[in-house]
Amino acid sequence: MTSTHDLLLGARQARTALAGADTKTKNRALEAMADALLAHTEDILAANAQDMEDARGHISQVMLDRLALNESRIAGMADGLRQVAALPDPVGRVLSTVERPNGLVIRKVSVPMGVIAIIYESRPNVTSDAAALALKAGSACVLRGGKEAYRSARAIVDALGAGLGQVGLPPQLITLVEDTSRQSAHELMTAVGLVDLLIPRGGAGLIRACVEQATVPCIQTGTGICHIYVDRDADPDMAVSIVDNAKTSRPSVCNAAEVCLVHRDIAPAFLPLLRERLKGVELRLDGEAAALVPGTPAGVRDFDTEFLDYILAVRVVGSVEEAIEHIGCHSTGHSDCIVTWDRAAAEKFLTQVDSAAVYWNASTRFTDGGEFGLGCEMGISTQKLHARGPMGLEELTTYKYIIQGNGQIR
Amino acid sequence: MTSTHDLLLGARQARTALAGADTKTKNRALEAMADALLAHTEDILAANAQDMEDARGHISQVMLDRLALNESRIAGMADGLRQVAALPDPVGRVLSTVERPNGLVIRKVSVPMGVIAIIYESRPNVTSDAAALALKAGSACVLRGGKEAYRSARAIVDALGAGLGQVGLPPQLITLVEDTSRQSAHELMTAVGLVDLLIPRGGAGLIRACVEQATVPCIQTGTGICHIYVDRDADPDMAVSIVDNAKTSRPSVCNAAEVCLVHRDIAPAFLPLLRERLKGVELRLDGEAAALVPGTPAGVRDFDTEFLDYILAVRVVGSVEEAIEHIGCHSTGHSDCIVTWDRAAAEKFLTQVDSAAVYWNASTRFTDGGEFGLGCEMGISTQKLHARGPMGLEELTTYKYIIQGNGQIR
Repeated sequence: MTSTHDLLLGARQARTALAGADTKTKNRALEAMADALLAHTEDILAANAQDMEDARGHISQVMLDRLALNESRIAGMADGLRQVAALPDPVGRVLSTVERPNGLVIRKVSVPMGVIAIIYESRPNVTSDAAALALKAGSACVLRGGKEAYRSARAIVDALGAGLGQVGLPPQLITLVEDTSRQSAHELMTAVGLVDLLIPRGGAGLIRACVEQATVPCIQTGTGICHIYVDRDADPDMAVSIVDNAKTSRPSVCNAAEVCLVHRDIAPAFLPLLRERLKGVELRLDGEAAALVPGTPAGVRDFDTEFLDYILAVRVVGSVEEAIEHIGCHSTGHSDCIVTWDRAAAEKFLTQVDSAAVYWNASTRFTDGGEFGLGCEMGISTQKLHARGPMGLEELTTYKYIIQGNGQIR
Repeated sequence: MTSTHDLLLGARQARTALAGADTKTKNRALEAMADALLAHTEDILAANAQDMEDARGHISQVMLDRLALNESRIAGMADGLRQVAALPDPVGRVLSTVERPNGLVIRKVSVPMGVIAIIYESRPNVTSDAAALALKAGSACVLRGGKEAYRSARAIVDALGAGLGQVGLPPQLITLVEDTSRQSAHELMTAVGLVDLLIPRGGAGLIRACVEQATVPCIQTGTGICHIYVDRDADPDMAVSIVDNAKTSRPSVCNAAEVCLVHRDIAPAFLPLLRERLKGVELRLDGEAAALVPGTPAGVRDFDTEFLDYILAVRVVGSVEEAIEHIGCHSTGHSDCIVTWDRAAAEKFLTQVDSAAVYWNASTRFTDGGEFGLGCEMGISTQKLHARGPMGLEELTTYKYIIQGNGQIR
């Protein structure tokens, strides 16, 4: 068994091979990794079958579905690798150039992070997606997946390593942490000097652990208590369609809506439409909403919970200002939306709501790298430092200043 | 006494007044703050005299010099405020706009951080500099200065607050933490949800404390173990001039050089020149260098110490690769330089040395917001996340995505 510390040392060593690699080499590696995934299909499916067998009865049906692989899902992962190959190289972009009066030429150039650690849960496809993005961004990656998916992830990483080998790159560029206990997550969070960027992809518990324990640079992702505010001047049909889509099209994802705020003047017309449309959804209603439609009385935590389920908290407010105030107190800063025809109200909302993505008359479900045109996504940042919202390839790089002189002193 | 927690709550409340303020209002505030500083000169000098009296005998002469204010220094602080007023507004820049095939218009726009906390030491001018930059960047700031400078900082903050009042902005936008014990620094480091960005400006101990304790987003600044590598193909006169400048022009600052690496082939010619030129500097020499010139034998920590003094560690290396390897192990990632006429060696060095600023034939002393043309500086980031190198106004902002639709669902 290779220790997590040794994996990190290997990744640091290997990263220099990648830092010097040109775009063509990286793309050839991604193509070779895609081919290798397909070639290893049988091994991956066998490993996945074992994971599934052990997990059955211990995790929910939803989690089992996420864990399950089949030929078409593996082909999808290989396609994902080829799509990343087709994206522009985020490394080596000259972000600015200045020539100073003293003749110094100062270039600001995008460069790889170095070593990116990713802690994730049981979806095996994250293994290849994350590895592909890190590789294209010029960084080695150290992956720490969930226990349930360990054998699947191991088989996938072995395949990816075979692909790397075919273009002469070291397999240490993509490694999987063997220890799936909390200890290894903590080790990654505190590997100062070895991890240049840590990306936790998971639930609120993981994110909280990172906030509390991480001493390495870390980007918080994914927790989404997203709001739809239905303003007095909303089109009720548009509003109900947006809330329906944001709540029910995929309730388990972070850009799904958890809370609907409704202006008092439109509530009597809007809430019955909502109740009618969202038949399969449990509405948790504040007092005023409960007087208008049937539902469950909202409890004290219902406006601070990421349900990730067919549950929607509903509150009646008196103004756009009250909606903004509520969101300021309860939002996780992911995605929030106003539905209105009133431009002044919309502008106030878009300016004052301090979230990564603020919407006017569109579903929060669009907060996604693909939907934003980034071509890919490593997660949705809910923090303000470095990256906010969907993180694409550019957000996985840093920059340095390269200064050329001819003997200048100060 | 207002608790640190209450100051933070006040700042969060006040920040919305600033988030809505236009460029003109912010600039008028900065001008009013400059006028108020001048108008309060007498109070500030009186407070500073008390600080100086208490500090004398307890801190070094260098620290006393940093602490001391006089009319001209206060005028310099006021000028600094006016210079920030003259800089472009970093808030509201449209960083990108895309119209998606579904008609969604997605704008990425720079926005204020919110509340910026700054922990610094005893230079009173940092109080007004930091406040000015935070204000122009649209954020409230909570300042926590050193104990020795408390009364000076208090008088300065009172003056700045008077300036804010003159343009109708709340004084809670610029506040000073009253508690100067370690407890208040820890409180700022862990004020999750109240502090959007923490900038520690100080020595290695403060930075280490932030890495270990901070749970709020934090930018590490300033620790600089900077290297000059004198390559085989260096011009010896240029090299000695660069090392001299980088070491002796201002040894107490973070962009000063602490280590000189010399190629074996040029060492016999170069080191005697260096010894001759850097008369007042103690050279700490590795074995090979010690055989060529007189000096102190280097101890085991000398290549990992930010001397901030007239001391230079010197080591002979066999190649540019060995220099890069040494820097990879010992640099703090601030600024490192190669002196050479060999373009291939220079390119290898500039690519492989993983520091915020990498120099070819110029002094590391240029790593500075002013020298880089940013017009100002909040500190030098030595981390890779968000900002690297000198942080100007743009680096004090974040961004959000503003998405406009007409009912789009996914």
